[in-house]
Amino acid sequence: MSSAPHSAVVTLTGHLMDTGILARVLDDVLEYGGDYRIDSLELGRQHGDESRALVEVSAGDTELLDRILMRVQVHGANAVDPGTATTRPAPADGVFPEDFYSTTNLETLVRLDRDWLRVEHPEMDCGLVVSDGSVVRTVPVSDVRAGDAVVCGAHGVRVELPPQAPRGEEDDFGFMSSTVSSEKPQALLVRQIAERMREVKAAGRRVLWVGGPAVVHTGAAPAMVRLVEAGYVDVLFAGNALATHDIESALFGTSLGVDLAKGSGVPHGHEHHIRAINTVRAAGSIAAAVDSGVLTGGVMHALVRAGKPFVLVGSVRDDGPLPDVITDVIDGQRAMRAELHDVGFAIMVATMLHSIATGNLLPASIPLVCVDINPATVTKLADRGSAQAMGIVTDIGLFLEQLARELAP
Amino acid sequence: MSSAPHSAVVTLTGHLMDTGILARVLDDVLEYGGDYRIDSLELGRQHGDESRALVEVSAGDTELLDRILMRVQVHGANAVDPGTATTRPAPADGVFPEDFYSTTNLETLVRLDRDWLRVEHPEMDCGLVVSDGSVVRTVPVSDVRAGDAVVCGAHGVRVELPPQAPRGEEDDFGFMSSTVSSEKPQALLVRQIAERMREVKAAGRRVLWVGGPAVVHTGAAPAMVRLVEAGYVDVLFAGNALATHDIESALFGTSLGVDLAKGSGVPHGHEHHIRAINTVRAAGSIAAAVDSGVLTGGVMHALVRAGKPFVLVGSVRDDGPLPDVITDVIDGQRAMRAELHDVGFAIMVATMLHSIATGNLLPASIPLVCVDINPATVTKLADRGSAQAMGIVTDIGLFLEQLARELAP
Amino acid sequence: MSSAPHSAVVTLTGHLMDTGILARVLDDVLEYGGDYRIDSLELGRQHGDESRALVEVSAGDTELLDRILMRVQVHGANAVDPGTATTRPAPADGVFPEDFYSTTNLETLVRLDRDWLRVEHPEMDCGLVVSDGSVVRTVPVSDVRAGDAVVCGAHGVRVELPPQAPRGEEDDFGFMSSTVSSEKPQALLVRQIAERMREVKAAGRRVLWVGGPAVVHTGAAPAMVRLVEAGYVDVLFAGNALATHDIESALFGTSLGVDLAKGSGVPHGHEHHIRAINTVRAAGSIAAAVDSGVLTGGVMHALVRAGKPFVLVGSVRDDGPLPDVITDVIDGQRAMRAELHDVGFAIMVATMLHSIATGNLLPASIPLVCVDINPATVTKLADRGSAQAMGIVTDIGLFLEQLARELAP
Amino acid sequence: MSSAPHSAVVTLTGHLMDTGILARVLDDVLEYGGDYRIDSLELGRQHGDESRALVEVSAGDTELLDRILMRVQVHGANAVDPGTATTRPAPADGVFPEDFYSTTNLETLVRLDRDWLRVEHPEMDCGLVVSDGSVVRTVPVSDVRAGDAVVCGAHGVRVELPPQAPRGEEDDFGFMSSTVSSEKPQALLVRQIAERMREVKAAGRRVLWVGGPAVVHTGAAPAMVRLVEAGYVDVLFAGNALATHDIESALFGTSLGVDLAKGSGVPHGHEHHIRAINTVRAAGSIAAAVDSGVLTGGVMHALVRAGKPFVLVGSVRDDGPLPDVITDVIDGQRAMRAELHDVGFAIMVATMLHSIATGNLLPASIPLVCVDINPATVTKLADRGSAQAMGIVTDIGLFLEQLARELAP
Repeated sequence: MSSAPHSAVVTLTGHLMDTGILARVLDDVLEYGGDYRIDSLELGRQHGDESRALVEVSAGDTELLDRILMRVQVHGANAVDPGTATTRPAPADGVFPEDFYSTTNLETLVRLDRDWLRVEHPEMDCGLVVSDGSVVRTVPVSDVRAGDAVVCGAHGVRVELPPQAPRGEEDDFGFMSSTVSSEKPQALLVRQIAERMREVKAAGRRVLWVGGPAVVHTGAAPAMVRLVEAGYVDVLFAGNALATHDIESALFGTSLGVDLAKGSGVPHGHEHHIRAINTVRAAGSIAAAVDSGVLTGGVMHALVRAGKPFVLVGSVRDDGPLPDVITDVIDGQRAMRAELHDVGFAIMVATMLHSIATGNLLPASIPLVCVDINPATVTKLADRGSAQAMGIVTDIGLFLEQLARELAP
Repeated sequence: MSSAPHSAVVTLTGHLMDTGILARVLDDVLEYGGDYRIDSLELGRQHGDESRALVEVSAGDTELLDRILMRVQVHGANAVDPGTATTRPAPADGVFPEDFYSTTNLETLVRLDRDWLRVEHPEMDCGLVVSDGSVVRTVPVSDVRAGDAVVCGAHGVRVELPPQAPRGEEDDFGFMSSTVSSEKPQALLVRQIAERMREVKAAGRRVLWVGGPAVVHTGAAPAMVRLVEAGYVDVLFAGNALATHDIESALFGTSLGVDLAKGSGVPHGHEHHIRAINTVRAAGSIAAAVDSGVLTGGVMHALVRAGKPFVLVGSVRDDGPLPDVITDVIDGQRAMRAELHDVGFAIMVATMLHSIATGNLLPASIPLVCVDINPATVTKLADRGSAQAMGIVTDIGLFLEQLARELAP
Repeated sequence: MSSAPHSAVVTLTGHLMDTGILARVLDDVLEYGGDYRIDSLELGRQHGDESRALVEVSAGDTELLDRILMRVQVHGANAVDPGTATTRPAPADGVFPEDFYSTTNLETLVRLDRDWLRVEHPEMDCGLVVSDGSVVRTVPVSDVRAGDAVVCGAHGVRVELPPQAPRGEEDDFGFMSSTVSSEKPQALLVRQIAERMREVKAAGRRVLWVGGPAVVHTGAAPAMVRLVEAGYVDVLFAGNALATHDIESALFGTSLGVDLAKGSGVPHGHEHHIRAINTVRAAGSIAAAVDSGVLTGGVMHALVRAGKPFVLVGSVRDDGPLPDVITDVIDGQRAMRAELHDVGFAIMVATMLHSIATGNLLPASIPLVCVDINPATVTKLADRGSAQAMGIVTDIGLFLEQLARELAP
Repeated sequence: MSSAPHSAVVTLTGHLMDTGILARVLDDVLEYGGDYRIDSLELGRQHGDESRALVEVSAGDTELLDRILMRVQVHGANAVDPGTATTRPAPADGVFPEDFYSTTNLETLVRLDRDWLRVEHPEMDCGLVVSDGSVVRTVPVSDVRAGDAVVCGAHGVRVELPPQAPRGEEDDFGFMSSTVSSEKPQALLVRQIAERMREVKAAGRRVLWVGGPAVVHTGAAPAMVRLVEAGYVDVLFAGNALATHDIESALFGTSLGVDLAKGSGVPHGHEHHIRAINTVRAAGSIAAAVDSGVLTGGVMHALVRAGKPFVLVGSVRDDGPLPDVITDVIDGQRAMRAELHDVGFAIMVATMLHSIATGNLLPASIPLVCVDINPATVTKLADRGSAQAMGIVTDIGLFLEQLARELAP
C-alpha cells in the first residue's frame, strides 16, 4: 500500500453497514474535496456483529487533510496513527490559534505525551485547552484567554461513539431515532418517554426540560406543574416568554389572549404580560414573588416551591424582561452549562430557539427528545449536529397531559 | 333618497357590529366593482341586541348588480324588494342557463309567484331547479337535465342565516370558531366536542366522520374502534387510503411502515397495502371479508359489525382500489349527499381532500369541526366557504385517544 | 457456507458504500423480520469503483422469504440464483393470485424458461402478466382479467437500477437529489432545470408537466403560457382546479379571489368559477371553447393552440366539473399512462395529489423534479417510492417566472 | 343618557364600517369583561366618507375600566372626555408604578395640564415618562429610573391612527395588507415593493432591512450585495447567524453545507463557521477584517464599504459570536432603537426572531413588509401587534434576485 504524500488512515468500528455510518464518512471526505480508498473492511457478517473498516483519506494539502480528519471524527472515525497533540497559545482573549482543533460533542481523549487524557464535558464547536500538562478542558471561543494552550490540528485527539445496539435490537426507546414523523403511534411514544424518565430518576440522574411559551398557551401548565411536583423536572431552561406567560396566567388568568379557565379568547391582550413582568420586577425576583405571596400558581411557582433550578436566558424580542432573565446570551450559555451536571435525559417542548441552544451544549451521550407541533424544529435540531435528537411531532397540550397521566396520575 | 338606475337595497339583521358581518358585506360590494350607501342602521345599542341595516348597492349594469346581490347573500344579506324568481330552461344536460342563480350553503327560500318555498338540502355552488311549480331542489350542474326550469338572476331568492348568539354569550362550544390555532387549551376542546356529540346523539341526530389515513398511522385506530362501538360514528366518509391502511394493519400488523404493536418502523412497506387490497378484492367487498372471517379487526371491521354505512370515494393516486371504493368522483359525491340526512354534527380528521369535499356538500347549519396537525387544512376549508368550520390544530393520535376516553371509557 | 432451510443469496452491484444502499437493503431485511449474513463484499476501493456484495437473506418461512426478496428488489438487489418465474391464473377479473409478484418501478426482466424478457413500462405496485409465453406486461390490479397468467413469488424476476454516477461525479443536476430544502441557491436550480429541459427536447423526448391551481393563483399563468408556446410543455396532467381557475381568470380576470391585473383581492369569489365551468360545459369542451372564440387566453388555451395534450382527472372535491375532466379516477390513471410514452423529464408544480398520482405511474428511469412551497409535498412523494424525485421548496410564481426567462426570454 | 358609575364614552373616527375596526373595539370590550352601548353612529353613507362612533364602555370597577380604555386605544379609540394625565414616581429602577399606562405603537399625545404634548418615538408595551413637566418620552421598563414621573391610568392620553384610505382606494401597495398568502401574484408584489423603496429614498428617508441566514443559504447574498451597492439598504438588523454564514461563505465558499458556486452540498460543515468567527475575532471586528483585506466579499463587506450601519444582536444559540455582536439583548434593543431615526420603510426577510424584535420597536406609522417561506412568521408578527405588517410568503432567494433586478439591474 503506497500512500499519497498527504494522507492518513482512519479506523471505524461498529455497526457500519446497517447504520449507514461508513457511507456518511466517505461522503464527507468527498464533500470536503478529499478522496478515499478503503484499505480493509472486516465485516460483521451477521447483523449482531460489529464491523471494522480502515479507510485511507487523502487530500491536496495537509491543512485540508487536517480539516477532513477533524470532520470525520463527528462520525467516530479516528486516525490509526493519531500521534500526539500540538498546542499553541491563544493569541488574544477570545481568539483561538488559526488551526485550532474544533470539537465534536462526543467523548474525546487527547494524547499530549504518552497517555490519553479524557476531556471533561464534551461540547461541539469549541476548542480544547490544556492546563498543567494534564487537564484538558472544552472551552468556547468566548472564554479562551490569551496564552491558553490550545490543541491545534487533528493529531493526538480521539473520539468515542456512544455505545450502540445493532438495528433491530435497540431497547424499546430506540426506534424513535429513525425519523421525524407526525405519523407514529403517539400514545406508545408517551409511555416510552415516561418509562425512560423513571429509569433516569431511578439511576439518580437528572431530567432536563427545555420549554417554550406554548406550554402555557396550550393549557398544559397544570400538567407541567404535576410533573414538577412528582419530581420529573430537575431543571428548566427557557426564555422570558414561558415564564412571563405562566406568571401572567397565574396573576390574571390569561395568557396571550386565551382565558384558560373559560376557554374563551382574549386576543392580543398584550398589556397583561407587561403588567405581570412589572409586578415581578417590583417583587425583585420570581422566588421573591412566591415568598411574598404575590405569585401563587403555575409552573414557575411550582419550581420555586420544589427547590428546582431554572435558567431563563433573554432574547432580542423580549419585553421587560423578568428580573430572573439573564440578558447577556453568553452569560446565559455559561449558566446553562453549569446546570448540565448529572443530566441523564433531556426533553425539549415547543421551542426552537432554546432547543437548539441546549442541543449545542449537550454531549452526544445524553438522550434527547424534542417535541413540537412543527416538524421544522426537530429537523433543524438534528441538522445542527445533535444526532441523538429524537423527534416527535405532536400537540404539546395533549402530550403533556398524557405524560402527566403516566407519571403523576 | 334617489337611486342610480342599477341599484337595489339589501337588508341585514343580526349582531352586525360585533361580528364584523356588515364590514364583510360592504367589502364584497367594493371588491366586485360595485358601490354602496348605508341608508339606515338601527343599532343594537347594547351588545345583546340585534341590529338592522339597509344598504343600497349600486353597479354599472344589471348583470353586475345581480352578481353582487347573489354574492352578498353568502353573508345573509337579502334584497328588501326581492321580487319573484325567473326561471329559464337548462339548454342541455349538465348545463345551466348563463345567468343561473348560484347557491350558497344557507337555508334558502324561493318565491315563484306569491309564496316563499323552502329549498331542500342547501348546498353551495349549485343551481335551483323548480318542478311542478312548487318544489325547488338544489341541483349540481352535473345533474341538471335539458329543459329543467332553473332559477336565473338574483330576484325571488332569500337566504336565512343560522341563529347566532351575540359575542360573549355563545355556548361553551362557540369560542372555537374564533380562529385556527395550535395554541389553545386542547384538553378543554376535547371535552367540549365530546359534550356536543352526546347532545347530537341525544337529539336523535347522526354524527358524520370524515377521516384520512393518519387515523391509522398515528395508532388511533383502536380509539376510533371504541368510538364506533360506543355509537358515536354514524357514517364515515373517506378514501381508499384510510380503509386500505386500516385493513393492511388488521391483516399484516403494519401500516405504511409502522409496526403498530412494537412501535418499530417498517419504512416503505408498500407492498403490504397492495396485498391487503387484493385480498379484499378476492373476497368481493369489505363486508364480505368480514363475513368470511378474513377481516377480523380495525375501523372498517367495526363499522361493518355495527351496521354503520361508509362512503369511500376514489382519488387519482389510489392503488387498487378496494372494491367498495366509488371510482367515479361525481358518483361519489352523489353517494355522500345520500348520507347527509339527519346529520347533526360533522367531524373531519386528518384529511384535506375529503374534508373540503364534504364541506362543499354540507349546509351551513351543520356544525363542523376540522382536526388536523396541519393548519393549512383548516384554513383552506374555511376559505372555500365553510364558514361554520371550527379548526383544531392538534395531533390526531392523542386527540382521538382522549376523545375515546371521554366517550367510550 | 451452510444455509438455513429458508434462505437465498442476493447480489448488489454499484456504489454501495457511499450511496448507503447496502445499509438500506440490510435494514429492510431486518424490518421485515428476516436476518442476513454478508457472504462477500468486493470493495470498490476508490470512490470511482463499483462494489459488489453477496448477502444471504434468511427467514422463518418461504412466504416471508419471498416477500423479503421482492422487497429488496426495490433497491436493485437480485437473487444470485433467480430460477424461473412461476405463473398462476388470476382467479377473477380485478384480482391477482394471492402470492403475486408486486412490481417496483425499476427496469424489470422476467425469465420464464431460459431467456430474460424485458417488461414494458415499469410501474410500482402492479402485477406482471405473461401473454403468449413471451410478452410480459405490467398490469394494475384493476385491469387484470380472470385467467391471465400472473407471475407469482419472487423467482425468475430481476431488476436493473438506473445507471448512477459515484458521489462527487454527478452531472450538475445530480446534487439536487440529496435532500429537500428551502435553503439552496434557487437561481442556480432554475438554470439547471432549464438546461435539463433543453437536453431532453434536443434528444427528441417529451417534457411532462403536472400542475396545481397555485400556478394560476401566484400569477404564473403568463409564464406558463410562454413555456407552452416555446415548446417546453409536451403534456400536462392536472385536475379540474388548475383548468377551472385558468379559464375563470381568462373569462373574468379573477382566480379564487385574486384580481390578477390589479393585484387587488376578490376573496371567496367562488361563484365566478362555477360560471366559468358552466360556460365551458355549454361549449362542450375546452377545445370547443377555444375554437368558438369564447376562451381566448390562459394556459389551457395555449395548450389547445399548440396542439399539446392534457389529461384532467377529477377529484371528490371538484365543482362541475369541466367537460374534459375524466371523472372516473381509474380511467384517469389509464389516460395518464397512455401519455407517458417518450417522456424524458417530469416536472411537478404545486400539487400534492397529482404529483403522487403521477409518481405512482412513472418508471424510476425518468428524472422527476417536484416544486412546491410546502416541503411536505416533496417528502411525501419520495416516501411513497419515487426515489428519483428531486425536491425544490420554493415559490411557484417566482420559479415559473424565472424558468420562462431562461427558456422563453 | 344615564351612565353606570364606572363608565366612559370613547370616540372612533374613520372608515369604521368597511375596515371592521368598530367590531374589533366592541370585541375587546367584551373580552376584557366590560360591556358597551353604542351611543351614536354617524355613518359615512358612501364608502368614501368617514364615520364617527360614540361608544359607552362600562366595567365593574374603575381599574378594569382603565384597563379597557387603554386596551381600545390600540384601535385608535379615545375617551371623549380624556381628562388630564396622572403621574406617579417609579418605585425603583426598572419598575413602573402598578397602574402605569402601557403604550401602543400609535402616535400618542399626553395632556398634563392644558396642552396636548406629542410623545416622541411611539413604541408598544412601554411606559410614558414626563420630564420638566413638558417632555414625554416612551421608556421601556428596563430603562425607567426610580422617581421618574410615569403616566398612570388611562386619563389624559390620546392616540392617533395613521391616515387610512377607504377600502378600494388604497394606493397600489395597500392590498397586500389584506391577508397572508402564498397564492398571490408574486412578480407584481416585487415590483410594488421596489416602487415603494424608490419613493422612500426619493423622500430622503431610510430603508431598514432585517434579515436571517437564509439570505445566504438560498444563494441570495449577491443580490443583496447589489441592493446595498445601489443604496437600498440603509441599515441592517440581524443576528450572529446571517453575518457568520455570509462571512463563512466569503472566506470558505460554503455556508452551512452548501457550496454556493458549484451548487453541490457540504452537509453539516459546521466547523467552517466557527473558523470564520475565529478569524474575525482575531481581526477585531468585521470592519477591521475588511480593512485588513481578510474579508473581501459578501453582504457584510458591502455594508462596511458603503458605510452603512448594522446592528447584530446575539441569541442564546449563537456560536462565538462575532466580535460585532451585542451579546446583551437589552443593550441590543437600545442599539436598534438608536437606528430607527428617519426610517420610512422596513423589510424583514427570513427571520422570525429579529422580525418580531424589530416589530416590537417600530411605530405603527412605518410600513413594514415581512417576507418568509414560512407563513407562521408573518402571522406571528401580526398577532403580536404589528398590524401594519404586510406578509409575503415566498422564496427568499428568488424574491431578492427579482428585487435586485428591479432596483439594481
